[in-house]
Amino acid sequence: MEIAKPYLMFLGDVHDQLAAKTAQGVVDWRRDWCIGQMRLPGCKADCGLQDMTIAQAAAAGAKTMVVGVVNAGGVLPDHWVSAIVEALDSGLDVATGLHKRLASVPAIAEAARRHGRKLHDVRFSDHAFATGKGTKRPGLRLLTVGTDCSVGKKYTALALEKEMRARGLDAEFRATGQTGVLISGRGVAIDAVVADFISGAAEWISPAAAPSHWDVIEGQGSLFHPSFAGVTLGLLHGAQPDAFVVCHEPTRKTMRGVEHPLPTIGQVIDRTILEGQLTNPAIRCVGIAVNTQALGDNEAKAYLDSVSRDYSLPATDPIRYGIASIVDNVIAQFPR
Amino acid sequence: MEIAKPYLMFLGDVHDQLAAKTAQGVVDWRRDWCIGQMRLPGCKADCGLQDMTIAQAAAAGAKTMVVGVVNAGGVLPDHWVSAIVEALDSGLDVATGLHKRLASVPAIAEAARRHGRKLHDVRFSDHAFATGKGTKRPGLRLLTVGTDCSVGKKYTALALEKEMRARGLDAEFRATGQTGVLISGRGVAIDAVVADFISGAAEWISPAAAPSHWDVIEGQGSLFHPSFAGVTLGLLHGAQPDAFVVCHEPTRKTMRGVEHPLPTIGQVIDRTILEGQLTNPAIRCVGIAVNTQALGDNEAKAYLDSVSRDYSLPATDPIRYGIASIVDNVIAQFPR
Repeated sequence: MEIAKPYLMFLGDVHDQLAAKTAQGVVDWRRDWCIGQMRLPGCKADCGLQDMTIAQAAAAGAKTMVVGVVNAGGVLPDHWVSAIVEALDSGLDVATGLHKRLASVPAIAEAARRHGRKLHDVRFSDHAFATGKGTKRPGLRLLTVGTDCSVGKKYTALALEKEMRARGLDAEFRATGQTGVLISGRGVAIDAVVADFISGAAEWISPAAAPSHWDVIEGQGSLFHPSFAGVTLGLLHGAQPDAFVVCHEPTRKTMRGVEHPLPTIGQVIDRTILEGQLTNPAIRCVGIAVNTQALGDNEAKAYLDSVSRDYSLPATDPIRYGIASIVDNVIAQFPR
Repeated sequence: MEIAKPYLMFLGDVHDQLAAKTAQGVVDWRRDWCIGQMRLPGCKADCGLQDMTIAQAAAAGAKTMVVGVVNAGGVLPDHWVSAIVEALDSGLDVATGLHKRLASVPAIAEAARRHGRKLHDVRFSDHAFATGKGTKRPGLRLLTVGTDCSVGKKYTALALEKEMRARGLDAEFRATGQTGVLISGRGVAIDAVVADFISGAAEWISPAAAPSHWDVIEGQGSLFHPSFAGVTLGLLHGAQPDAFVVCHEPTRKTMRGVEHPLPTIGQVIDRTILEGQLTNPAIRCVGIAVNTQALGDNEAKAYLDSVSRDYSLPATDPIRYGIASIVDNVIAQFPR
């Protein structure tokens, strides 16, 4: 799935900024792909883009309207449908991360057909993947893994891509989740593929590349999460990472949505190496990324120092303190 | 998915017995559910059932026609479609393990709608599962695991169910693959569910039960198979087995469909315990089931003796020598 750029970000009339989390993620990481935002009366979210109508966006060259908001209840209200139809009528494709398929709404399906436009439901995957082959392919790969879900694996991967590019490395973010797909303009929500094809989809997402090229692959779930570890393992096997970064949130008491305690960073390092060796015997950990949002500055720095000492690895909060220390280590460990 | 019994086994006009492998599996393990077989002119397969027409089967009380054969190329030929429509017209449901959905053939969809009959595509899963919860539920569970795919996990589970019942245990086979679903009349092809719901589907397949009830759960893939380990891990976490049996085929050089060597039985035991402890800390191995088909009798017995000694566990070929030794161990390890 390749989503045409630039984007018009559709924010609808959602009641708070949190409902526009996906749109904000795209703006944070791909500001130059976002030509403007389209808001309906009463909208309380604002991604800081120029407000424009669909007609203005089309005239300015927008190629895809991204519905980067979630409505309460996950439904697609009628007045959003008419905006989506207007976008299609104006020659734009439409992409969403909603639970409902765009084409399941007859007016949208009909407008897309009439104008030959594409509908991207990034939460679904219709691609016919092959099963994973497990054979090593050329190119370098870094995977972000986690002690839990929602601990910053996507942001860490995007921060790594940015910093690696700034150092002159040939690095590319590879999306495996819906927001990531909108941010990268391609990829697959890997938790949405049929179970038999998890590792095959991961191989497809990160194909053979030049020997010095880095794919920075967005991780999913955790090997220690009882709901999602299967997805995490299939992604690990298909990604065949040479390097991985462990992401962690230090104040969380139980894993997301279940009663299980979080594993330690050390357990995640050991288990990722043990399992990852099946498709890449040289897999190694290159750093630790901590979401320290809940900690004060002194506390955060002390925590990072202690983690770094415990595991003899660079440890940082990518958002708060940058990710240079981890990229330093990548460059040291993988000299060109 | 609950499939109504008894079955009429449809064998079509396939060219050899191997094409009727699924039908034969059902006949081998559920002979009393099979009212007869329906063969078209030129059929070279024979499951040893009474040949009958669809009308005769309907009159004899058949409730579902099972398409237990695969056609070369996986297509559904026109003369099979007319037989399927005739079955629906005669008041039977239809179940298949084909790659193509029955309802994707307009004549079949229309006939099912007209008569209010059910179409079971056991290779697909439309059930909306919850994500796995990982909390321990009552009842005892045994999972068959493997050093590879296609090493006898389904047959071992079915043999265990049969022997455990013969000993007076309350045991029930739980299907996780398409042939298993047809054999048990319910279950889910777990490799066909959306990746996010693997462990949730496994929890659904084997719900809370009486404390002395055994679910004998059909395993899938292998934790060491680079294509399918994600499915295997999600199934392990959702199944929460108290006991597991390792299945093995001793003459295989590489894992099915890939270039990876097989793990040892010991590696599978250790990894299954390591990973299985996440949802059941008391998980333990109770036996080893070996497919010795490729070995002579003396060689097979010597191999089983040496494996049994190496791991201090009962080792047998369930088809060739029965599975009593493993059930003895289950009874010893889990006294009522």
